[in-house]
Amino acid sequence: MFNWSSIDIEMMSRAIMLAERGRYTTRPNPCVGCVIVKQGQIIGEGYHQRAGQGHAEVNALKMIQDKGLSAQGATAYVTLEPCSHYGRTPPCALGLINAKVARVVVAVTDANPEVSGRGIAMLKEAGIEVDVGLLTDQAYGLNLGFMKRMKTGLPWVTVKIAASLDGKTALSNGVSKWITGTAARADVQKYRANHCVLITGVETVLADDPSLNVRFESLGELITRHTPDEIFQPLRVVLDSRARLTENQQIFAIESPILLVSGCEYSADVKAALPDYVSFLVLECDSSGRIPLQALLTYLGNTANSVLVEAGATLAGAFVAQNLADDVVLYQAPKILGSQGRNMLQLPDYTAIEQTPSLQLIDERSVGKDKRYILRYNKTY
Amino acid sequence: MFNWSSIDIEMMSRAIMLAERGRYTTRPNPCVGCVIVKQGQIIGEGYHQRAGQGHAEVNALKMIQDKGLSAQGATAYVTLEPCSHYGRTPPCALGLINAKVARVVVAVTDANPEVSGRGIAMLKEAGIEVDVGLLTDQAYGLNLGFMKRMKTGLPWVTVKIAASLDGKTALSNGVSKWITGTAARADVQKYRANHCVLITGVETVLADDPSLNVRFESLGELITRHTPDEIFQPLRVVLDSRARLTENQQIFAIESPILLVSGCEYSADVKAALPDYVSFLVLECDSSGRIPLQALLTYLGNTANSVLVEAGATLAGAFVAQNLADDVVLYQAPKILGSQGRNMLQLPDYTAIEQTPSLQLIDERSVGKDKRYILRYNKTY
Repeated sequence: MFNWSSIDIEMMSRAIMLAERGRYTTRPNPCVGCVIVKQGQIIGEGYHQRAGQGHAEVNALKMIQDKGLSAQGATAYVTLEPCSHYGRTPPCALGLINAKVARVVVAVTDANPEVSGRGIAMLKEAGIEVDVGLLTDQAYGLNLGFMKRMKTGLPWVTVKIAASLDGKTALSNGVSKWITGTAARADVQKYRANHCVLITGVETVLADDPSLNVRFESLGELITRHTPDEIFQPLRVVLDSRARLTENQQIFAIESPILLVSGCEYSADVKAALPDYVSFLVLECDSSGRIPLQALLTYLGNTANSVLVEAGATLAGAFVAQNLADDVVLYQAPKILGSQGRNMLQLPDYTAIEQTPSLQLIDERSVGKDKRYILRYNKTY
Repeated sequence: MFNWSSIDIEMMSRAIMLAERGRYTTRPNPCVGCVIVKQGQIIGEGYHQRAGQGHAEVNALKMIQDKGLSAQGATAYVTLEPCSHYGRTPPCALGLINAKVARVVVAVTDANPEVSGRGIAMLKEAGIEVDVGLLTDQAYGLNLGFMKRMKTGLPWVTVKIAASLDGKTALSNGVSKWITGTAARADVQKYRANHCVLITGVETVLADDPSLNVRFESLGELITRHTPDEIFQPLRVVLDSRARLTENQQIFAIESPILLVSGCEYSADVKAALPDYVSFLVLECDSSGRIPLQALLTYLGNTANSVLVEAGATLAGAFVAQNLADDVVLYQAPKILGSQGRNMLQLPDYTAIEQTPSLQLIDERSVGKDKRYILRYNKTY
């Protein structure tokens, strides 16, 4: 294990903090931060803000250039292995080589197994000292979705639930406004803003007629850090196995991409009536007449790092029961709705505690008068 | 509003802390603390330890006497109005008068409407300054059960539940060992030790065959403050409407009082086979064949300040649905048991959120890896 100095730890922590600033804007690219240090002083720093714009290293080197300084002999701290390929920008590894940095500290190697290690190799070949593995877990945690998609082709799947203390999401008649408070609902907006895709079921759309968009004014402190056009709307995906939806739903009133996933084609009339930001995907349903979720995630994984499932107990439960979920985010209100209310997750009839989902509580906090729990499957990607 | 001095607040806080020491030992008497102060110094203090033994004021005065000091001109801080009646001990008000204290500060007046204010009147008639109402809520909270019973004749009812995050107390087959962890189960032991009566249903006894006793060795830090014989066993009450229980249950193996409540008499054979610490109460069942809970609580209120309900969803739910519960204590484990699991509270099919139980969250804390929530009805006694 490398013997990291306190300067190393301090600077990589700062690089992670910088990377975090891109959390709502970089996708489908990863969040990356870079700090360049010379004689114990930060001479440049940067982060990746948006796909197509400068990578973290490029931004940090530009800051040095703009100041009329030189990175020669400096140490660069990067949260993710510098890229080695010519894309929309030249390889970052080359940028660091050309700037003549003496040492590069890398938190996490590239997630893509095909290129992992190449950036580091390029740096080493140029005679640069490269140290890998500082604050790896923290840096990895910045890009769970990107990392999973690079390694498996599938997006990170978060199932979001809002329920009472006795685990009910609604009364038996479907009434659920409002179980959780405004703070929890605002927090959900941040989750939506932070995800590439939002999945729901046709039953939810028909019953609640939601918009399922990100409402900028509900984003709390994010408003001060971003402008409305910086915030992505997630691709809204509705699972509608029997193609029952028509144009008369609130979801179609928000001008932002929608993907309708069905087991059969929609009628030409409905298709013609739907706005042009609606697209269609037909997947052969499984034996119980449901959209195959694994196939859906494979499709979405072509472009999406992360999926937020906001659905009823059947669909949300299917992601959990089929072991396709990574996180369950549960907003829990200090209320008792009673045994007749709707359950949060439709799951199999387990006969032993060991059969129940092996979720670990990784975070809990108060959100207004409600609680937010994050439960995670112990999966390795 | 009286303008309390910082000395007043400090001394009453201490009296409350002292009263608290009797929490596990005074019942059915209330917890009471007393601090006697002269020239800013505590010269005597005491608390009520056990029914039949000295009241708080008596103990505090005795300490002064033992030291060879005098309470003349002192201020006495008492968490509950000094008693005015001759019982097993002479009236405490008289003791304070005889000791020639100059001032008495009272947190809470006596809960019994028939004697409330009499102790204060006795002190005032003797020329003592009496100030009432310092830290009232805190002092009241020491004796919620005693206060409710004095005012209404009914014990304080706490419904205890152990459940998963999705509100399930067991799998559909009844498996529930163990949803919550050892720390939560130890905390339940303290709840049992702190209650006069423990109520359960025959279904729980038949299915789980529990002992439902207090296990001294599970009481954690209480072990250092009490000896085993100081800790009460709650009266174990089993609701068995059709008198189905026989002697072959673990509950009867623990030599401690049990009350079997049924809608019809047990057979002479069963009665003869049961140990002599088992007693019987027959109550006419309601139209649905269930033990009438209000009548049961009225009976128990003759002697019991507090009742802990540890039962299945039907019985626990009945206390909530019939508006007979004061607190719901929920131990919640960070697990998901799924929709097929058993609900925590069988409640009516509500059609509006406003119909659901109007419980307020008054306390939440971590107990090991689980959470403990205390939800309270906003009732005034």
